[in-house]
Amino acid sequence: MIPERHLFGPGPCNPYAEATEALARPLLGHLDPAFLQIMDEACDGLRTVWGTDNARTLPLSATGSAGMEAAFVNTVHPGDVVVVAVNGLFGQRMCDVAARCGAEVVPVEHEWGAPVDVDRVVAAHPSPSIIAAVHAETSTGVRSDIAALGAAKGDALLLVDAVTSLGGIPVAADEWGIDIGYAGTQKCLGVAPGLAPFTINDRAFGRRVERPQSWYLDLGLLGGYVGEAEQRGGKRTYHHTAPVAMVASLRAGLHRILEEGLEAVWARHEAAGRALQDGLQDLGLELFAQEGSRLPELTTVKVPEGVDSATVRARLLADYDIEIGGGAGAYAASVWRIGLMGPNANPSSVALLLAALGETLGRR
Amino acid sequence: MIPERHLFGPGPCNPYAEATEALARPLLGHLDPAFLQIMDEACDGLRTVWGTDNARTLPLSATGSAGMEAAFVNTVHPGDVVVVAVNGLFGQRMCDVAARCGAEVVPVEHEWGAPVDVDRVVAAHPSPSIIAAVHAETSTGVRSDIAALGAAKGDALLLVDAVTSLGGIPVAADEWGIDIGYAGTQKCLGVAPGLAPFTINDRAFGRRVERPQSWYLDLGLLGGYVGEAEQRGGKRTYHHTAPVAMVASLRAGLHRILEEGLEAVWARHEAAGRALQDGLQDLGLELFAQEGSRLPELTTVKVPEGVDSATVRARLLADYDIEIGGGAGAYAASVWRIGLMGPNANPSSVALLLAALGETLGRR
Repeated sequence: MIPERHLFGPGPCNPYAEATEALARPLLGHLDPAFLQIMDEACDGLRTVWGTDNARTLPLSATGSAGMEAAFVNTVHPGDVVVVAVNGLFGQRMCDVAARCGAEVVPVEHEWGAPVDVDRVVAAHPSPSIIAAVHAETSTGVRSDIAALGAAKGDALLLVDAVTSLGGIPVAADEWGIDIGYAGTQKCLGVAPGLAPFTINDRAFGRRVERPQSWYLDLGLLGGYVGEAEQRGGKRTYHHTAPVAMVASLRAGLHRILEEGLEAVWARHEAAGRALQDGLQDLGLELFAQEGSRLPELTTVKVPEGVDSATVRARLLADYDIEIGGGAGAYAASVWRIGLMGPNANPSSVALLLAALGETLGRR
Repeated sequence: MIPERHLFGPGPCNPYAEATEALARPLLGHLDPAFLQIMDEACDGLRTVWGTDNARTLPLSATGSAGMEAAFVNTVHPGDVVVVAVNGLFGQRMCDVAARCGAEVVPVEHEWGAPVDVDRVVAAHPSPSIIAAVHAETSTGVRSDIAALGAAKGDALLLVDAVTSLGGIPVAADEWGIDIGYAGTQKCLGVAPGLAPFTINDRAFGRRVERPQSWYLDLGLLGGYVGEAEQRGGKRTYHHTAPVAMVASLRAGLHRILEEGLEAVWARHEAAGRALQDGLQDLGLELFAQEGSRLPELTTVKVPEGVDSATVRARLLADYDIEIGGGAGAYAASVWRIGLMGPNANPSSVALLLAALGETLGRR
C-alpha cells in the first residue's frame, strides 16, 4: 500500500489537483498539433511567472538541477570568470557545475542562513563574464535580493537559480535584469518533479557557446523544439521526444496558478509562511534563516537541544503522514526544513503542521 | 478539448493503463522510504528487461536522448577513439554527442534500411576505446545483431542504444556483452516519455571518467542516489530530486510487463508486427527496412508514388485519431513509420491501422 503524505518538506510538495489530473489524461504524441499547443501554452505561462518576454522560455526535459547545468553549459566559454554567491548548498553546486564547464570560478562565501551580500559579490572580480546567485536557497530558507544584484551586475550576465521561488514569491526576470534563469516544477509551481522551467534573454543567448559540451541541453538546438523558432519565421524541428505527460501537467498547474492570479498566489504563500513562522516561535522554537530574509514558502527552524531530528521526522511520517525535511550539509541534524508550497500554502496545512509538531515535541 | 489518439507512430505509444494510473497517485517525497522502495523495484524490473545483473541499472531523470549523453559523457576520455556504426539518425546523433565529449569519432556509414555490418565496424579501427551501435534504429525500423558485435568487440567497451528495443524484443545485455546501454520509457516499455533506463557494468564503470563534464549525469554521483551504494554497504545520498511520478509510473509499467511475462510480451510484439507487415504488403505497399532485419515493433513502409505523405498522415489523425510517423532525415516524405509498441502491440491495433490506412489510400 502506498501511503498518502502531506509533503511539507523542501519539495516536492503535493501537486495542484489540476496538475495531477493532467498527468492521467490520454497521452498525445510529441509532434501532435494538440500537444504543440499545450507546449506553447506552457511556455506562455512560464513567461508570466518568470516576469519575462524572453522568446526562449521553455520547460527543459529534466529536473531543476539540469536547469542549473543548462544555464552554465550554454554560457560558459573555457576560462570565463564566473563569480558565484555561495550562501548554501545550491550555490556550492553552482561552483561544481561551472567548473566542469571550464569556468574560472570565484566563489564568494557567506555564512549559511544569511542572504547574498551584493556589494561583496560585485567586488569579487573586476570583469566577470557571469555573476550567479540563488534567489531562494532551498538549503537554508533564505531569500536574496536579486534586483539589487541585477542593478549592480555591470557587463556580466546574471544567472539566477529560482528553483524554490518561482510561483511562490515575486520573480521579475526582465525588471531585475536576470539574463539566465532556471527553476523546478516541484516547488511552488505545484507540479511533480521532472522539468526545469528555463529562460534566457537575447543578450545571454548572443554570448552563448555555439556548440556546448551537452547536446541534450544545447539551447541552439532546443529553440526549434519549442515554438521559439516559429516565432522568428523558422520551423519547429525534432530534437528529442518531449516528456509529454509532464509538460501537460505543467501547463495545467500554470493555468491553475494564473486563474487564481499570480499576486493572490504569492499572498497565499506569504500568509501561510508567516503564520507558520509565528506559530513555530510560539512553540518556543528558534528560526534559522536570518530575520528579514526568511522565505515564506520554506521555513528553517533549529532542532531544539536534546531532541533527535530523525526521530521527530520519523514520528511525523508514521503518526501523521507528514513529511518535513532535515537540514542540508553541516546542518543535517540541527535544522528542519518545512515547506508550504503550491496547494499546501494554506491555513489548514499550517494548523496541521503546528499541531502535529507540537504534540510530537510535547509542547502543546 | 484534448483529443484521444491511437499512438501508432515511432513513439510515444499509448502507455499501459497501470503506468497511467501510477502517474495519478498521490505524490511521495523523493526521500520517503515508500518511494525508495518504488525506486528499488523499478531498478530491479529494469535489470530483468535489460537481461543484466548490473548493480548500476537505473532510470536517469531525463528522456532517452539524455541516456545517450550519459553513456558517452561518463566513458569518453579526451582523444578516445569511438567507432560508431551509423545506419540511421540515432547513429548520426551518437557521433555528435561523442564528439562533444572529446572523442575521436570513427563513423562507419551504412545505407539507411540496412543493419549494422559487424565485420566492417570491427575492422574500422585496430584499438577503439568504445564501439557504439543502435540495436533498433528508430529512424529506419532496422534491427542489428548486437550479440555478434559483442562477440567481436575485443577490448573495446560496447555501448548500445536500446531505446526502441527494450521491452519489445529480446535484449540480453550481459549475455551479449553490452557494457553500457540506454533506452527510453515511451517505446515498448509502454510508459510516458521522461526517463532513460540505463545500465553500465563494472568493466565500463572501472574505466569511467572520474569527473565527467556533466554533473547531472555523473554516474559516480548517481550511484548513491539509487540503492546501488547501499548494496555495497554505502549510504543513499541526495543528488537531485527524483522525478517521483515518472519513476512510480515506470515501476508500474515494468510490473505490468513482468506479470504478463517478458517472453509473452516479446511474442505479442512479434505477432502484431508480422501481421501488420503482411497486411501492408497485402495492400500493395512496399516495406523499407531490409528483409530479415525488420523490427516487429516499428515498421517502415515506402510512401507510394503519387501519394503525399503529410496529407495521408493528417487524414489519419483527423478522421481516425491515428498518429503514424513520417520518415526521418532524407526519407521524411518518402517513408512512413508505424509503431505497435507496448499495449498497442495487439491484433485490434493491427486491424484498425490496416483498415484506416487502406481506406485513406483507397486500397480497400
